Amino acid sequence: MSEVEKKLKEFAEYLKKINHYTTAGNLMYWDMTTGMPEAMAESRAETLSFFQTEVHSLNVSPKIAEFIEFFESHMGEFDYIHKRMTEQLKKKYENQKRYPEEFIKEFSLAASRGEVAWEKAKNASDFDVFKPALEKIVDLTKKSIEYKGYEDNKYDALLDDYEAGLTVNKLDKVFGELRDGIVEILNKIKVTGKTIDDSFFHNHFPKSEQESLSLKILDLMGFDFKRGRMDETEHPYTLDMTNKDVRITNHYYENDFTSALFSAIHEGGHALYEQDIPDLLEGTGLNVASSMAVHESQSRFYENIIGKSREFSNYLYKEAIKQFNEQFDGVSEEEFYKALNKVTPSLIRTEADELTYSLHIIIRYEIEKLLINDIIEVKDLPKVWNKKYKEYLGVEPTSDKEGVLQDVHWSDGSFGYFPSYALGNLYGAQMLHKMTKDVPGIYEEIGKGNLQPVHKWLKENVHEYANLYDPSNLIKKITGEELQAKYFLQYLDNKYKAIYNY
Amino acid sequence: MSEVEKKLKEFAEYLKKINHYTTAGNLMYWDMTTGMPEAMAESRAETLSFFQTEVHSLNVSPKIAEFIEFFESHMGEFDYIHKRMTEQLKKKYENQKRYPEEFIKEFSLAASRGEVAWEKAKNASDFDVFKPALEKIVDLTKKSIEYKGYEDNKYDALLDDYEAGLTVNKLDKVFGELRDGIVEILNKIKVTGKTIDDSFFHNHFPKSEQESLSLKILDLMGFDFKRGRMDETEHPYTLDMTNKDVRITNHYYENDFTSALFSAIHEGGHALYEQDIPDLLEGTGLNVASSMAVHESQSRFYENIIGKSREFSNYLYKEAIKQFNEQFDGVSEEEFYKALNKVTPSLIRTEADELTYSLHIIIRYEIEKLLINDIIEVKDLPKVWNKKYKEYLGVEPTSDKEGVLQDVHWSDGSFGYFPSYALGNLYGAQMLHKMTKDVPGIYEEIGKGNLQPVHKWLKENVHEYANLYDPSNLIKKITGEELQAKYFLQYLDNKYKAIYNY
Repeated sequence: MSEVEKKLKEFAEYLKKINHYTTAGNLMYWDMTTGMPEAMAESRAETLSFFQTEVHSLNVSPKIAEFIEFFESHMGEFDYIHKRMTEQLKKKYENQKRYPEEFIKEFSLAASRGEVAWEKAKNASDFDVFKPALEKIVDLTKKSIEYKGYEDNKYDALLDDYEAGLTVNKLDKVFGELRDGIVEILNKIKVTGKTIDDSFFHNHFPKSEQESLSLKILDLMGFDFKRGRMDETEHPYTLDMTNKDVRITNHYYENDFTSALFSAIHEGGHALYEQDIPDLLEGTGLNVASSMAVHESQSRFYENIIGKSREFSNYLYKEAIKQFNEQFDGVSEEEFYKALNKVTPSLIRTEADELTYSLHIIIRYEIEKLLINDIIEVKDLPKVWNKKYKEYLGVEPTSDKEGVLQDVHWSDGSFGYFPSYALGNLYGAQMLHKMTKDVPGIYEEIGKGNLQPVHKWLKENVHEYANLYDPSNLIKKITGEELQAKYFLQYLDNKYKAIYNY
Repeated sequence: MSEVEKKLKEFAEYLKKINHYTTAGNLMYWDMTTGMPEAMAESRAETLSFFQTEVHSLNVSPKIAEFIEFFESHMGEFDYIHKRMTEQLKKKYENQKRYPEEFIKEFSLAASRGEVAWEKAKNASDFDVFKPALEKIVDLTKKSIEYKGYEDNKYDALLDDYEAGLTVNKLDKVFGELRDGIVEILNKIKVTGKTIDDSFFHNHFPKSEQESLSLKILDLMGFDFKRGRMDETEHPYTLDMTNKDVRITNHYYENDFTSALFSAIHEGGHALYEQDIPDLLEGTGLNVASSMAVHESQSRFYENIIGKSREFSNYLYKEAIKQFNEQFDGVSEEEFYKALNKVTPSLIRTEADELTYSLHIIIRYEIEKLLINDIIEVKDLPKVWNKKYKEYLGVEPTSDKEGVLQDVHWSDGSFGYFPSYALGNLYGAQMLHKMTKDVPGIYEEIGKGNLQPVHKWLKENVHEYANLYDPSNLIKKITGEELQAKYFLQYLDNKYKAIYNY
């Protein structure tokens, strides 16, 4: 074994050690949300915090600096993978090295407590229950920006955590174009004066049957149940320990046919990405997704572009009739499809239609910018939230639960994440454009409930690249073009034109 | 803060750190048995092994030696608790210091793999599937005895792990007396020629209803669901992370009314002990059970002495009729009680009646002694097992699943544990003798389904002492007498005399 091989092996072992802590931490988090006895909360938060501190120590240890130095002095002998490995390692090291250990510990403890407080507050529909914990988290987030530094806008520091190199400056432009395009379509729809009936989706759908249907569709998508499972939590999410244990969660509403089903499809999209990460990248640190927005592109691709397509809707219609015959009595295939794609400006992001969804994101993006730049305070959030909903979507929450408390993201300090969802829409539509060129008959297969060609294309063109490329390069590699809003806006226009006949 | 107070605080923090690893490890184990995706098995085994190695390092670190030295030089200032803390710390340290870190790692990896292999083997009812993993575990167990040393019998080294100071010499005597007593009662029963009908326990009992009943009885026992939960595994067990998160598991057989119910009561007995460990002992290391046999005394006390008593049987009868009206059609209270206590020499330990149960233990004890002393080899186990069952109980397994593969214990290397169950019977009966003197009307309350006085007595007399006393001192403190077999044998004789009228 050469000196380089020896060092690479040593590095792989070191990553394995870090992985022991992260997988254990992830499992503890999963347990905390799926059914941990409540008396354990405080102790669990401490253990999670301890583990995150250990991971941080390992990530910023002199050992890592030593690896980087060695690898950099051998770049000439490295292939692309090991060069990328070295670059990413260095970037992550320098990024983490900024934060004192005490700070990481404090943040992770605040995040664990934040989530507990958020869940209580949401159940009580009372923002004040969450407020003290959130204030702590926001303070620490601002402090993290000081450690990290920024050029133009404080919020840039947060964006960069989820989408390397993205700035408020760039995002304001893309989101501007997106917003104008969406508003234009929304107005065309309004002008038609058409309304779509989706009341049959609000019949009674027993939880256990919703669960079976979700499991069936996940199986269809290619979710590997030997490498994952589905559980129940307050807020659906996907958690990967390794590519061999990827867990999704769901939440059931018995008076809603679509909520759990499309959550399962959404989380399933995330999960396929994680399950498809190639084993051969183990030991390099590159066996992770390219970015959060690319991750969201996968979930939203399945949820909307595939899940709510004409063809898949027809397939779902047959399945729905099979499982819930009475509830869909007298509903036609056409009515089912239109109801799935009904446009209604509404209160809850996760239940928003495909068209208005991005407006929910733009609201959150703007609020986060205001909060982080000290223009508003935590105590102002419910009021600002409600005002923006009225302004952008024409609807106003009557309770905190339906408003500012609906999302988990702030409770664990994930400020800067929300834009990823809308970026995911853009990436997804651009990928679709390429996929339908590569596989011309793909929609026919989707109509038969055969999602294998979709999975195969995504696996080969997105998932298996893992973190071998930055997202901006990945999308260029896949589609030959830079990221742009036009594909998504064209896709939306084509879709809604046919549905609303405008 | 005095120097001593400071050091005690530092020690408490150190224990907390160890606890982070052990609780995470316990959660990973729980997850592994309750529903972890199967592709994760190898990786999970490695993580568990890594954590156990970390715990070992922390337990044998120079830091511990330093604590011991400091505490020993301040024994004069210490109260009983801190004296005991120091003694126990030193004992544990010296015991663990014997094993090289590499050995601990190897053992824990072998144990994780052993459990996976055992489950596969049991499902396939094929001992050969388990054999290679078990051979590894037995080799390592023998190696551990070399590290530990022994005086008379190699097996003494293993016994001491679970019951401080117990030897083959002592145990052969107690078990001899126990066996003679049981055989005498068994013969008296045989002479009567009476048979009891328990066929109604083998009607169909839907799993979900069995689960509800188990949960109801656990609630009655005083199991605190804010500090614990019940899940489903291949083999029922109790796992405590702290006194605030104690999990029991169960296994349901739809053609058996008693199996899951009495597993729940058994594990519930373990769980109450753990939930009742006082918070004030946190940071001393004494917040654990006195011994495994005392632990088993609690589980078996609830399962048999309470659970199958005339009075509780009458209560259960009413509950059973309520939940399973049809299945118990025409069954009287008397028939129900007798069926619960039917004596039938049988194949499966966990389903054995109260009388013959200890013979199952004595078989395992004898086999372990033979194996550890190199008189038999792993490959001989199925044959020796079947032979002893024929000899002692007059029944012979027709498959490995019903024979040598029935118990989980060997798969993770818990040799020396089995005797605890029978010792638990002895402790339990001796405690009962005292409890009925202290609380004369207790059986009347039990008959009403009020288990609070039982819980209160056990909590105050056993649970809250945690590891403040060695078991031999604890039983003396509780009952004023040394451990002896006579109370258990008297209890059995009284019970079966009434049931079989001999």
